[in-house]
Amino acid sequence: MRAMAIENNFGVENLHLVERPVVDPGPGEVRLRMLTASLNYRDWLMVQGFYNPRQPLPLIPCSDGVGLVEAVGEGVERVAPGDRVATLFAQRWISGRPTVEKLRSTLGGPFDGTLAQHMVLSAEGVVPVPEHLSDEEAATLPCAALTAWSALVTEGQVKAGDTVLLLGTGGVSIFALQIAQLCGCRVIITSSSDEKLERARALGAWQGINYRSTQRWGKKVLELTEGRGADHVVEVGGAGTLEQSLTAAAVGGTVSLIGVLSGGSADVGIISALMKQLRLQGILVGHREGFEAMNRAFTAASLKPVVDRVLPFEEAPEALRQMAEGSHFGKICLRIGER
Amino acid sequence: MRAMAIENNFGVENLHLVERPVVDPGPGEVRLRMLTASLNYRDWLMVQGFYNPRQPLPLIPCSDGVGLVEAVGEGVERVAPGDRVATLFAQRWISGRPTVEKLRSTLGGPFDGTLAQHMVLSAEGVVPVPEHLSDEEAATLPCAALTAWSALVTEGQVKAGDTVLLLGTGGVSIFALQIAQLCGCRVIITSSSDEKLERARALGAWQGINYRSTQRWGKKVLELTEGRGADHVVEVGGAGTLEQSLTAAAVGGTVSLIGVLSGGSADVGIISALMKQLRLQGILVGHREGFEAMNRAFTAASLKPVVDRVLPFEEAPEALRQMAEGSHFGKICLRIGER
Amino acid sequence: MRAMAIENNFGVENLHLVERPVVDPGPGEVRLRMLTASLNYRDWLMVQGFYNPRQPLPLIPCSDGVGLVEAVGEGVERVAPGDRVATLFAQRWISGRPTVEKLRSTLGGPFDGTLAQHMVLSAEGVVPVPEHLSDEEAATLPCAALTAWSALVTEGQVKAGDTVLLLGTGGVSIFALQIAQLCGCRVIITSSSDEKLERARALGAWQGINYRSTQRWGKKVLELTEGRGADHVVEVGGAGTLEQSLTAAAVGGTVSLIGVLSGGSADVGIISALMKQLRLQGILVGHREGFEAMNRAFTAASLKPVVDRVLPFEEAPEALRQMAEGSHFGKICLRIGER
Amino acid sequence: MRAMAIENNFGVENLHLVERPVVDPGPGEVRLRMLTASLNYRDWLMVQGFYNPRQPLPLIPCSDGVGLVEAVGEGVERVAPGDRVATLFAQRWISGRPTVEKLRSTLGGPFDGTLAQHMVLSAEGVVPVPEHLSDEEAATLPCAALTAWSALVTEGQVKAGDTVLLLGTGGVSIFALQIAQLCGCRVIITSSSDEKLERARALGAWQGINYRSTQRWGKKVLELTEGRGADHVVEVGGAGTLEQSLTAAAVGGTVSLIGVLSGGSADVGIISALMKQLRLQGILVGHREGFEAMNRAFTAASLKPVVDRVLPFEEAPEALRQMAEGSHFGKICLRIGER
Repeated sequence: MRAMAIENNFGVENLHLVERPVVDPGPGEVRLRMLTASLNYRDWLMVQGFYNPRQPLPLIPCSDGVGLVEAVGEGVERVAPGDRVATLFAQRWISGRPTVEKLRSTLGGPFDGTLAQHMVLSAEGVVPVPEHLSDEEAATLPCAALTAWSALVTEGQVKAGDTVLLLGTGGVSIFALQIAQLCGCRVIITSSSDEKLERARALGAWQGINYRSTQRWGKKVLELTEGRGADHVVEVGGAGTLEQSLTAAAVGGTVSLIGVLSGGSADVGIISALMKQLRLQGILVGHREGFEAMNRAFTAASLKPVVDRVLPFEEAPEALRQMAEGSHFGKICLRIGER
Repeated sequence: MRAMAIENNFGVENLHLVERPVVDPGPGEVRLRMLTASLNYRDWLMVQGFYNPRQPLPLIPCSDGVGLVEAVGEGVERVAPGDRVATLFAQRWISGRPTVEKLRSTLGGPFDGTLAQHMVLSAEGVVPVPEHLSDEEAATLPCAALTAWSALVTEGQVKAGDTVLLLGTGGVSIFALQIAQLCGCRVIITSSSDEKLERARALGAWQGINYRSTQRWGKKVLELTEGRGADHVVEVGGAGTLEQSLTAAAVGGTVSLIGVLSGGSADVGIISALMKQLRLQGILVGHREGFEAMNRAFTAASLKPVVDRVLPFEEAPEALRQMAEGSHFGKICLRIGER
Repeated sequence: MRAMAIENNFGVENLHLVERPVVDPGPGEVRLRMLTASLNYRDWLMVQGFYNPRQPLPLIPCSDGVGLVEAVGEGVERVAPGDRVATLFAQRWISGRPTVEKLRSTLGGPFDGTLAQHMVLSAEGVVPVPEHLSDEEAATLPCAALTAWSALVTEGQVKAGDTVLLLGTGGVSIFALQIAQLCGCRVIITSSSDEKLERARALGAWQGINYRSTQRWGKKVLELTEGRGADHVVEVGGAGTLEQSLTAAAVGGTVSLIGVLSGGSADVGIISALMKQLRLQGILVGHREGFEAMNRAFTAASLKPVVDRVLPFEEAPEALRQMAEGSHFGKICLRIGER
Repeated sequence: MRAMAIENNFGVENLHLVERPVVDPGPGEVRLRMLTASLNYRDWLMVQGFYNPRQPLPLIPCSDGVGLVEAVGEGVERVAPGDRVATLFAQRWISGRPTVEKLRSTLGGPFDGTLAQHMVLSAEGVVPVPEHLSDEEAATLPCAALTAWSALVTEGQVKAGDTVLLLGTGGVSIFALQIAQLCGCRVIITSSSDEKLERARALGAWQGINYRSTQRWGKKVLELTEGRGADHVVEVGGAGTLEQSLTAAAVGGTVSLIGVLSGGSADVGIISALMKQLRLQGILVGHREGFEAMNRAFTAASLKPVVDRVLPFEEAPEALRQMAEGSHFGKICLRIGER
């Protein structure tokens, strides 16, 4: 089979087509014929060697994908051949509180990822996807959508009427926009582009702030909310944004920290956190039961992910470069195979 | 001022117009000029002497109302003259877990209620109402809406994608229908009338079940949900419905018990509860911070309560009789004064 | 190998020694050499055919046991030969909210139970036990201890200073006594025997009530707590006790319903639940992550379960009869093998 | 009456005895005759002008105190003359989520504090204290004890068997040591003094780490816990300690940030927080219902606060200097009046 892999050295220029054997699923495993993959900022960092320089090579990158179950090993009952399933980012995190062991099982590093025509995974590590989604739409769920869901629902427990602040219009933020609205929340979103703000409003955002023209957007959020601030901030920006995010947050509010996926890195002035009794919650994607709950929510609402563009599988390097540039609105996908 | 009161004996036939002095608010108090009241089943029970036979008379009944602040006592900062506010059912339950002391402060018994042209209340016991609501719509919030909110949000913590089962189309159930949808839930609702089921579907219900033609509606809910059952049941029915509600509930689900407002009384077969690890949660309306949170949610969504009909203040006995008959869809209001 | 099984008809008189083959663990499985089992009221109900008359026979009964891992199948990493482990009651309930699928995997019916010299189980369905416990003490954990833990900690979230009411001195109640104290709670316990109350006080109970001499013990609990009532009731009694339990519960309190294990069955007057905003929570033992958390707590406190008596494996029928009579204080165990 | 106040300029050298009128309580207010006060690091910061340079002067400093109710205003029912009560730090935070309005009501700035022979407060802003405590012991509760309680119980929801890491042996940490043990937790504590570690062990700490001799104490915590880390860290240190605290925290663990009371200020490397799904929770003392719950816990366990020393009221400047030096173990109190 064909796969895209980094073989000897990190760097997107070293991401090449390779040939690998197709193996049979062992007991409790399934083999997928992959249809599509979807990109996250973590994939860029991983390929470039920034995420974990000690990651052994070769590595097949990317965490998100959708495929058809084509073979099942002994004892598998969860899924059957023909089922369309997504990959679970942390293969061993089924539910409950995370542990080191649960988290050391992520696809696209340390485990091989989704840029391959076939994958063998534990039957516990795949999730049937909602029928109303196209393959590309379904492929966007495992990291970006689940991260937004975990931040707002599983951990954040937002409730109708809460004000949610979102930073930029990348994959996690656009999912957070859709999920927040599904939960009856009021969304404020930032962007450097008035055009993107307009698109976010078309998707239901209550207010948009251009952070180029309004550099102290934290204060602007307080004004828009009559001094209360945002009950929940989904912080994907890192160093450049955290100070404003803390300013924008309401007393007793929550700031979800998602920097890893977006490449952020930052220091936090903890005094503001203390004086406002803030909660800063690190979010590392999420568990399978959260994924399944999210699928029920998306199905009930017929919610559709926002796919920005679809490239062929072999153009993964170009697609990763485009994502790193940040001009997209929603998710970038790669087509691997046809149904 | 004029008020409606039961004076010597319980019974809706003893609910008469009376004349009472207008008193000034003391320190920390406000006086309202009342605009509208709204009826709950508890009012009927109270007037008939069924709710608490030891309630001293005379009593001005009814818990729900909206008025304009017309005078404030010393030290009042929460509200100002001219503010339009609703009454808080349990006057001393501001937030946190309930206590005997917090709960022994309810309007319409033991305290005088809202069927009066003027009311003096603690400034802590009133809540500014959303601007987009008419006086009648706002008057429906204190008991029925807050009960539905407490059941689903404060205590129930429903999340998007959950399935919510509602019984009938009375005030609490119709609010629960609206709130459940606001939270991204999927609603199944029962009624004895296909016409009311149609109206419920027009308000967004996913499925309606006519409990006359489908007497084992608990099983029907399991079928509609592919065996999973309802994650949350708002049980307003009592004796006649609880068995079916427990059948309909999902493993690990929650059944909110609201019988008091609807006159229900029932025995629960606890074995089903045990075998499915159900949670049965008694709901006694709710606290002020819940009311305020609900107002933010209603405002963000421009949600409008469903008012079935409005009668003049003096026709309270007739309005109570109509509510007891149960032919309404949504809430019945009484007009007390004009803005 | 030898096992105790009910073969053709329910009834403790039909529980006999049988010979069964020793099988090898498949992929993901482990084989245990059993050391001890411990009895629960559910076992009595199951053997008598009262628990589930449709349970297919033959059946090896009992849910609780401790053994040594003696062989592991392909791919097993959780445990290794030589580890001393307890059985998990619901073999597939690892964490998170229960589901039908998770719960339909319980030992001692529908799956064969612990009254056997060897058991083959999923490696996910065993739990290493604290070193400071004897085999008998460790064998008491899977049902009775975990039920008490789930009621008070996982679901009940008791906090230091809460008042906990316990009914009788059976296995669950004595564990609840020990766990409640570990959590800083104040315990009131009932019994028909002053001698048992004395023993409970020696274990740290704050107050004991003899329910023979104080039949309205619900009111007595209110008196002892200056009218507040018990924040948490662990209700193991069923029909005969629930009314008093609801009387004893504090406003906003929680009543955990554990009747299945104790054979209770009852109707609940829901009005009290409503008027006090009670939560009634069905408890069906608990999940593995709860078991692991409990083990950490027992280890940190060097807590020792209370073993009432130990009988030889072959005397299971007599041991079950003794448990059904209810004269024990703590747990009854059966010795199956030696280390 | 006599009070200690900073009048024209910040600085402990400007803290002087002053004479003030004794005023009567208004409606809803009480007047206390003060018995003792207790010092927190915030008091030092406030007096020095570091906490809030814009705080208007004169100011009577200090937040913690205990007194006897000597007069009550109109309508007061919560307390009666003769009751021994503590002051509530945030006078308007009774329960629920904090708000700007609730938090802007703290004693010792912006409101006058406890270094006075008499205080007039809202009846809602005082809390009866456990009978088994001396006046000095009771005076330590309002800030240090409630902060530890809020961190571990109200927000942290620690459970028995959790590992709790505490930094140093100041007031909050020693309370956290006592509360953590009350909740069945296992405590690791740091200090620069082996003697203080010995005293902490005598109070029940499981492990002590001398951070002078073990500078990478974060790693040491991982070793002591077999790689798991601390489920909960009560971070009172700030800049110098946060990095080690994050290292020490378990995956999915919680770090409570209490820096304000201890003068800390720091930057947080958020990447560790993300990679371990940590929760950083700012703690701003706590609400009255938490105080009341804590009192029930202290009463049930007969728990006694650790008072390091007691100085006369007039020696407040010296006492503050001693606290700033940090040689104490537990709390420093000031005697204002006799019972």
